[in-house]
Amino acid sequence: MANPHPMAALWRGGLLESTHLGHAVICDANGIVDAWGDPATVIFPRSSCKMLQALPLLETGAAAAVGLTDRHLAFACASHQGAHLHVDMASRWLADLGLSEADLRCGAHEPYDRTERDRLIKSDESPCQLHNNCSGKHSGFLTVTQHLKAGPEYVEIDHPLQKAVKAAFEEVTGEASPGYGIDGCSTPNFATSVAGLGRAMAAFAAARDTGSLRERAMYRLTRAMATYPELVAGEGRACTELMRAMGGKVALKTGAEAVFVAILPEQGLGIALKITDGGTRAAEAAIAALLVRAGVLEADHPATRKRLNAVLTNWRGLKTGVFDAAPGFP
Amino acid sequence: MANPHPMAALWRGGLLESTHLGHAVICDANGIVDAWGDPATVIFPRSSCKMLQALPLLETGAAAAVGLTDRHLAFACASHQGAHLHVDMASRWLADLGLSEADLRCGAHEPYDRTERDRLIKSDESPCQLHNNCSGKHSGFLTVTQHLKAGPEYVEIDHPLQKAVKAAFEEVTGEASPGYGIDGCSTPNFATSVAGLGRAMAAFAAARDTGSLRERAMYRLTRAMATYPELVAGEGRACTELMRAMGGKVALKTGAEAVFVAILPEQGLGIALKITDGGTRAAEAAIAALLVRAGVLEADHPATRKRLNAVLTNWRGLKTGVFDAAPGFP
Repeated sequence: MANPHPMAALWRGGLLESTHLGHAVICDANGIVDAWGDPATVIFPRSSCKMLQALPLLETGAAAAVGLTDRHLAFACASHQGAHLHVDMASRWLADLGLSEADLRCGAHEPYDRTERDRLIKSDESPCQLHNNCSGKHSGFLTVTQHLKAGPEYVEIDHPLQKAVKAAFEEVTGEASPGYGIDGCSTPNFATSVAGLGRAMAAFAAARDTGSLRERAMYRLTRAMATYPELVAGEGRACTELMRAMGGKVALKTGAEAVFVAILPEQGLGIALKITDGGTRAAEAAIAALLVRAGVLEADHPATRKRLNAVLTNWRGLKTGVFDAAPGFP
Repeated sequence: MANPHPMAALWRGGLLESTHLGHAVICDANGIVDAWGDPATVIFPRSSCKMLQALPLLETGAAAAVGLTDRHLAFACASHQGAHLHVDMASRWLADLGLSEADLRCGAHEPYDRTERDRLIKSDESPCQLHNNCSGKHSGFLTVTQHLKAGPEYVEIDHPLQKAVKAAFEEVTGEASPGYGIDGCSTPNFATSVAGLGRAMAAFAAARDTGSLRERAMYRLTRAMATYPELVAGEGRACTELMRAMGGKVALKTGAEAVFVAILPEQGLGIALKITDGGTRAAEAAIAALLVRAGVLEADHPATRKRLNAVLTNWRGLKTGVFDAAPGFP
């Protein structure tokens, strides 16, 4: 069992101020190609596994039955900003199903999008469940639930939808999940190893649109995410900006507590990483570093430089520090 | 050189999700009493050293010359919320000096206080430098600058004020500072070891109001902080809530990138800690754990339980995890 590997660091005044450790794997269809830290470490993928949680949406035939587009599929894999775009998308999707915001089980929180946040404050409106960053995933969950004619409490661990998610999750990661936790949006989140999550991403990368039902589902979800980066996160966010910087060739997804995954179809590679302390800034730097190393992201692209070899400035615009990959990583 | 020590951890669904490492010392007037990790680790104290940066305010006679109260002194050591209370305090202090917001050099940022934030948004007002969490420290800096008849650029490294800060900082930490960085508020922040910062806190703890000029300054700043916890941070914040929980017997201060210090006059102890990854939640859990161990904070006080052995819930009120000190710490 290897110790976690230094992955990112903050320098101030030429001195090291903070450091982040983590575990990471790069996998192809045959397994691990490269690893840092301990690939056997059990983690919660959190939102980084939304494309796995979306497999039943396609595999049950629910998406086809209601004519979902690739935009819906990208949104089902999103941790979005709660911008008008996202709230509108969730609202229309639910209306098309004959459902409403009250059918969601994700809870409400203030949107990350500043414009929508300020609009709510100015109009004395409370945020609703449509603003929840997971409302796209939950709209997908409700689509499957309706298709299966299952009960309304679709986040319960023994609900047919969650049983289908767990089965797909374990098959694609290639591991029996050692347990689950409850996520911020109330959904069960199944644990797996960093290696299992990396294998799953490699399976998505290798999937062909002429393959099995599962392969076709993985193929379509990957393309949907890479084609609509603004639906997967939002303006200013790492997933959106880095996917745009790679021109739709790579699908990316972050998860809470500093998980990040990437699907590289042209290379047939999947990447998964977890920063042990849960620091998102480090997960963003580490995934950017691995994507640069893989030759799919430019080191000097503004979206990269915002997160890797990033110059930090303060409220008066003075340079205060540099946030970068740890020396020697990757 | 010891490795950093596990100090805090997040559990979800009975599994370990994230962990934080750090360095900590407990010192008395003779030096280190207890240590975890490596006390020689060089850190930036960031805002945790505001009581050191405030020493020239008393020692130059500037505070006495303009009749500053203990409320002013607590506010000079603050990283505040930018609530109405704080903005008003900074505004009046500057007016009393014949100065204004434009004389500050801390920059402007959105206040952390929700009520004040929402008021600004509703009235289409931009935040100003009074809202900066460091505007109290900068009001103190301007008081010294005016008293010394020095130039207006008081955050420059060769300004007489910063020279006085550096001299006091090195004398009280007992170390030559190995360098400095620029803080978020544009002030030079002098580096020291974790041991140096702990020694400084022990010196504050041991200071008597009948001692030297420096001792009297340290005595007064400690009591000012412990007496006015709402001025040092604000509602909902760790420094304020934990100082209240200890009934004014301990002075606490957090710093960015997960530094925390405590001054325990009755015990004659000083505590300093740094979480290596910069995670504030871990610094709060670790300082709470050390204060419980020292017998000055109740383990079951609501302010403690918000940060140590804390039950985490999601947007729908479901229990999702537990954040606590790492097993075996302290």
